[in-house]
Amino acid sequence: MVKKAVCLLSGGLDSSTSLAIAQAEGYELYALSFDYGQMHRRELESARAIAEHYRVKEHIFYRLENFGGSALVDSSMEIPSDRSEEEMTDIPASYVPARNTVFLSIALGWAEVLDADAIFIGVNSVDYSGYPDCRPEFIEAYQRMADLATKKSVEGGRIEIRAPLLHMTKAEIIRRGMELGVPYEKTWSCYRGGEKACGRCDSCILRLKGFREAGYRDPIEYETDENR
Amino acid sequence: MVKKAVCLLSGGLDSSTSLAIAQAEGYELYALSFDYGQMHRRELESARAIAEHYRVKEHIFYRLENFGGSALVDSSMEIPSDRSEEEMTDIPASYVPARNTVFLSIALGWAEVLDADAIFIGVNSVDYSGYPDCRPEFIEAYQRMADLATKKSVEGGRIEIRAPLLHMTKAEIIRRGMELGVPYEKTWSCYRGGEKACGRCDSCILRLKGFREAGYRDPIEYETDENR
Repeated sequence: MVKKAVCLLSGGLDSSTSLAIAQAEGYELYALSFDYGQMHRRELESARAIAEHYRVKEHIFYRLENFGGSALVDSSMEIPSDRSEEEMTDIPASYVPARNTVFLSIALGWAEVLDADAIFIGVNSVDYSGYPDCRPEFIEAYQRMADLATKKSVEGGRIEIRAPLLHMTKAEIIRRGMELGVPYEKTWSCYRGGEKACGRCDSCILRLKGFREAGYRDPIEYETDENR
Repeated sequence: MVKKAVCLLSGGLDSSTSLAIAQAEGYELYALSFDYGQMHRRELESARAIAEHYRVKEHIFYRLENFGGSALVDSSMEIPSDRSEEEMTDIPASYVPARNTVFLSIALGWAEVLDADAIFIGVNSVDYSGYPDCRPEFIEAYQRMADLATKKSVEGGRIEIRAPLLHMTKAEIIRRGMELGVPYEKTWSCYRGGEKACGRCDSCILRLKGFREAGYRDPIEYETDENR
């Protein structure tokens, strides 16, 4: 019987690599992207391009109202720029309240209806922005909760929460993605949804560093000349 | 400083009583109701009436797309009727996949933005329909996950998941609600959204039994003559 996976797909580098890993493991892919009012809406086009590239079985764009509280949805809040890696241990203004909790919960509902075996999420706890819901202990606690939440769990089954990038550096993620042929030119990571990536938000800084350390050139264009 | 609570409010008997308990404990109330395509839409009118009665600080109706998989949202599935209490230990077709997980997660996001202290949910594990996400072990696991999920938790705070009805019988819930003056005539529990309550779905059966055992007459009208 075919194994099914719901793959959270933002259109960024991590979620695209996570989806590629699910495919490489033989899962039938169900991509789930969220429109939560993010101002970098360009990532949704990237999500569509990646889902098409991987010919997923189904792709849902799920609309979520947001309550504000994050620079990613509130234009009056400033997206942090030029933070050093030390500063990234502080939770920045780009943190979206309970985002991964909400995303995983919607995925859990879809996974139950599909009778899926796994949910893939591209969280990473090494080169990340200090978000609480990207830590291994959060993913573990979410799994324990999910094991009690569903009809499938009562009936002896399980929906596994898979976070294959959790302990990888950004460079390791990119190397693995390059082996798998992830079309990184189609992904979008920048928190500012400009024509080119800004090169200065946390997300750009981590991505550029990752490509540098992995020994590859990032195929997307940047406003800055950091991408060499 | 005022304590704030996000109260999940379906408009039914349990959630209305749970909200009344939050008020009695001195919380400032933020009501959260979900429009997830339930066919018994009448409960949303009840939610509005209850929120107005309690003069909540804010009331959000949050729209959620649904994936099907439940008789409460899919008119081609039958709502179970006339189940005995023994049969209610089986998970019925009215189960909505991962519903309480999703509801609590949206509430958690709002609670973070409000800097709220608690989330009140009217789940009950005694007189209930056998839903996995109404059990004490689910609520405990959700709390442990929430304690790792939020910025507030990293900063040493906590958003408490409160389920004050968890271990009460329906009759005990009603007695407590009557003491607190909950306007039960404004609540709606029936899974069939008719003019009168059907008296035959799990929700009606449990409600009628509760009123009988509590020694009160249910103030709403039923199609059947069970309400004596």
